[in-house]
Amino acid sequence: MYMVNVAILGFGTVGSGVAEVMEENAVSIAHNALEDIRVKRIVDIRDIEDGHFSKMQTKDFSVVENDPDIKIVVETIGGVGVAYDYTKRSLLAGKSVVTSNKELVAKHGHELLSIAKEKNVNYLFEASVGGGIPIIRPITQCLTANELDEVYGILNGTTNYILTRMVQGNVSFEEVLHEAQRLGYAEADPTADVDGHDAARKICILADLCFGKSVDPDRISVQGIRGVTAEDVEYARRLGYKIKLLGRAYRLDEEHITAYVAPHLISKTSLLSNVDGVMNGIVVHGNALGEAMFYGAGAGKRPTASAVVADVIDAAKHMLARKYLGWDESEPDYVVDAADIRMRWYVRTGSGLEEIGRAFGNVRLISYPGEYPGAGPDEYAFATEPITGRELQKRLSGMEVRSLFRILG
Amino acid sequence: MYMVNVAILGFGTVGSGVAEVMEENAVSIAHNALEDIRVKRIVDIRDIEDGHFSKMQTKDFSVVENDPDIKIVVETIGGVGVAYDYTKRSLLAGKSVVTSNKELVAKHGHELLSIAKEKNVNYLFEASVGGGIPIIRPITQCLTANELDEVYGILNGTTNYILTRMVQGNVSFEEVLHEAQRLGYAEADPTADVDGHDAARKICILADLCFGKSVDPDRISVQGIRGVTAEDVEYARRLGYKIKLLGRAYRLDEEHITAYVAPHLISKTSLLSNVDGVMNGIVVHGNALGEAMFYGAGAGKRPTASAVVADVIDAAKHMLARKYLGWDESEPDYVVDAADIRMRWYVRTGSGLEEIGRAFGNVRLISYPGEYPGAGPDEYAFATEPITGRELQKRLSGMEVRSLFRILG
Repeated sequence: MYMVNVAILGFGTVGSGVAEVMEENAVSIAHNALEDIRVKRIVDIRDIEDGHFSKMQTKDFSVVENDPDIKIVVETIGGVGVAYDYTKRSLLAGKSVVTSNKELVAKHGHELLSIAKEKNVNYLFEASVGGGIPIIRPITQCLTANELDEVYGILNGTTNYILTRMVQGNVSFEEVLHEAQRLGYAEADPTADVDGHDAARKICILADLCFGKSVDPDRISVQGIRGVTAEDVEYARRLGYKIKLLGRAYRLDEEHITAYVAPHLISKTSLLSNVDGVMNGIVVHGNALGEAMFYGAGAGKRPTASAVVADVIDAAKHMLARKYLGWDESEPDYVVDAADIRMRWYVRTGSGLEEIGRAFGNVRLISYPGEYPGAGPDEYAFATEPITGRELQKRLSGMEVRSLFRILG
Repeated sequence: MYMVNVAILGFGTVGSGVAEVMEENAVSIAHNALEDIRVKRIVDIRDIEDGHFSKMQTKDFSVVENDPDIKIVVETIGGVGVAYDYTKRSLLAGKSVVTSNKELVAKHGHELLSIAKEKNVNYLFEASVGGGIPIIRPITQCLTANELDEVYGILNGTTNYILTRMVQGNVSFEEVLHEAQRLGYAEADPTADVDGHDAARKICILADLCFGKSVDPDRISVQGIRGVTAEDVEYARRLGYKIKLLGRAYRLDEEHITAYVAPHLISKTSLLSNVDGVMNGIVVHGNALGEAMFYGAGAGKRPTASAVVADVIDAAKHMLARKYLGWDESEPDYVVDAADIRMRWYVRTGSGLEEIGRAFGNVRLISYPGEYPGAGPDEYAFATEPITGRELQKRLSGMEVRSLFRILG
C-alpha cells in the first residue's frame, strides 16, 4: 500500500478529534481508502501536551507548505484570517484541503474552489454543515437528478438545545443559556450561535450547492433567538407548533433565490419539529425526489471528526481525479430580500383588539390577556394570513410589538 | 460535450420514471454530469404506448448488449431471472449497470460487483434501499471514518402506511390492507411487503455495506405484520410506544453480526417512531459519528427515479475511474440467529396471571382483561426483561400466546 501523509492545522477540539479518529480507526480507514493514511504534521502555535501527537508538532506552517510528501491538509483553525491564508497556500502548493470551517467556506468558497480546480486538487468541507451528518455529498452526488427548489433546517445545535429546554421546562432564554454554558453546549461568548450567524454561514453553503451560485452570509437577513420568550413558546404550543431556529433558502425562479435565518413556528406533526436538543436536521426538496431529511449530531468533537476524516479518505482516493465541486459567482440581484417573501406570521403585541382588527382585519387569535396561567396579563398573540415582511411592518406601525416570527407549514 | 448513451431495461413504473426524469431535467443533469446523457434504447417485451419513447424500443436485449455506444444500462426489470442474466451480460460487455432491484443486489450483489470490478465498470444501486433517500453513498463515502456498529430502520413504505393507519384509526390490519390496495400503496399480491421479504432484502444490502460481508436474505429471520392487531397497537400506545416494522442489523463482535426483520415497539420519543405513512427512515450508528438518520420517500416512481438517475450521472462521471464498492463472502457462522439476541419483549396472552408469574416472575403489566374500552376481555399484555428469543419461547411453552414483538429503546 501507498502511504498518504496528512497535516492537521489547528489542534483544538475538531483537530484533535481528527487525529484521534484517524489513529483509532486506522485499519478500517485504510480498508476504505485502499491506502494507508497517517498524520505526519500538526501545526499549532500552542504547545501540544499529548506526548504522542506533540512529536508531530511544528509551529511553522511553511514546514507543511514545503513538504512535497504531504498531500492532504486538514484545516481546523476556524475563522477567515490565518485559516484563509494557509488554505490558499496549501491549495497553491498542490495539496488537497479538507475543512470544517463554515465561515471560510461561506465567505471564500467560490475563490478557494476555483484555485483547487486550477491546481487539480480537492477542497472538501462535508463537516462545515451539519457536523457528522452526511449532507454536502448527498446534495452534490445523490440528488444530481433533481432540480432542487428548497433547503432548510435546524443548523445550529446550541440554539436548538436552548429552544428545546425552553419548550420542556417553560424557562427563560437567559436561564437556559447559562445552563447551556455550564454544560459546554454554548460558548462563553455565544454571539455566533445565539444571534444566528453560525446558521447563516451554513444555509449559505447549502444554497451555494443546491442552487449553484454564491450567497454571501453578510448579505442575508439573520435573526437569532434572543427575542424568543417563555410566552412565545407557550402560545406556539397551544397552536400545535414548536419554535425552532431555521436557516432556509429556496428558489423563486430561474434567476432568483431567497435565503435567511429566523425563528419559525413549525407544526408539531412535522418530523423536523421533533429534532430536539443539540441535534440538527436538514430538509432538501427536489422535483423528482420530493422531500428528504438528514438528521444527526450537528457538532461535537467526534461527529465532526467523522465528517472531516471521510473527506480525507475521499481526497486520498481522488488524488488524480479531482471531484467536481463548485459554484458560480452571483449577480447582485440574485438573492431576494426575505422581507419580500409572503409568509404567515405569529405576532405578540401589547396593543388592543381594536388596533389589531384595524391593521389586520379578522385574525386568528392565539391568546388574549390572562386567558390561562402563563398567558401575559396585558397582551394578545395572533397569526396572520400570508403577507410579506414589508407589508407586515407597515400594518404594525404604531402598534406595540413584542414578538414576531414566521410560521412554516 | 461528450454524449453518453444509456439503455433502460424494463419500462414499468421505475423504468418509465427514469426516462421521464432524464428528459425533464436534462439541462441540470448535463450540468452535473459534465456530459450530455440520453436514453438511446429501451428494452421491454410489451409495446410502449408513449410515442416518443416507443421510438427507442427494442424487444431484443442483444441489440443493447452488442451496441458499443451504450455505456450505461439501467436495469429496472426486477426479480432474479431475466434481470440477473441481462445484468451479467451487460457487465461482461463492459457496460456499467445501475439498478433499483433490491432482490438481485441482495441475492447476487457479491458476484455482480466482482464481475464489475474485473471488467472495470460500475454496478450501482442507490435506489435499491430507501427509494429516493440517499443512503448507499452516505454509508460508503461519508461514514468511512467510522467503525459502523448498527443499522436499522423502516424500510418498507407499504407496511409503514398500514401500521400508521392502524395507529391513527384503530382499525384492523385487513381493513387497512384493502384501503392501501385501493390507493395503490399495496400490490394486489402484498406478500413481499406484508410478510417482510422486501425489508429483508434491504436490511441485507445495508448489512453487506456496513459490515463488509455478504448476508443472504433467505437465511435471516423474517416476521411480517400480519400478526399485528388493533389491540397490540392500543396496548403499545398506552406504554408510550408505536409498532413499526424494522429491519435491523448489528455487529456482535469482529466476526459476527445479526440481522432480522420484525415488528418492534419503539418509543414515541424516538425520531424514527414519527416516520409515518409511506415514508422510510434509516438509522446508522458509527463509533465516531454517533447516530444519523436518513428520511424520505422509500418508493414511488419519481423518488426512485431520482436515485437511479443520480447513479447514472455518477457512472457517467466515473467512466474510467471505477468506484470501489463491494463486500466479501461470509463464513457460514457469520450471521448469528436473531433468536440468540437478548431483547425486551411485548407479550399478549390469553393465559392467566398465575401462569405469567410462574413463567416470568414479576413482569410489567400493560393491560389486564377489560381494563378499559378496547382492551381484550380475556387477555393480558406485558413487557419482559431482556431475554433471548429462545429463552422466551421456553418460558411461553404451554401458554396461549396471541402476539409477541420486540421492544427497542
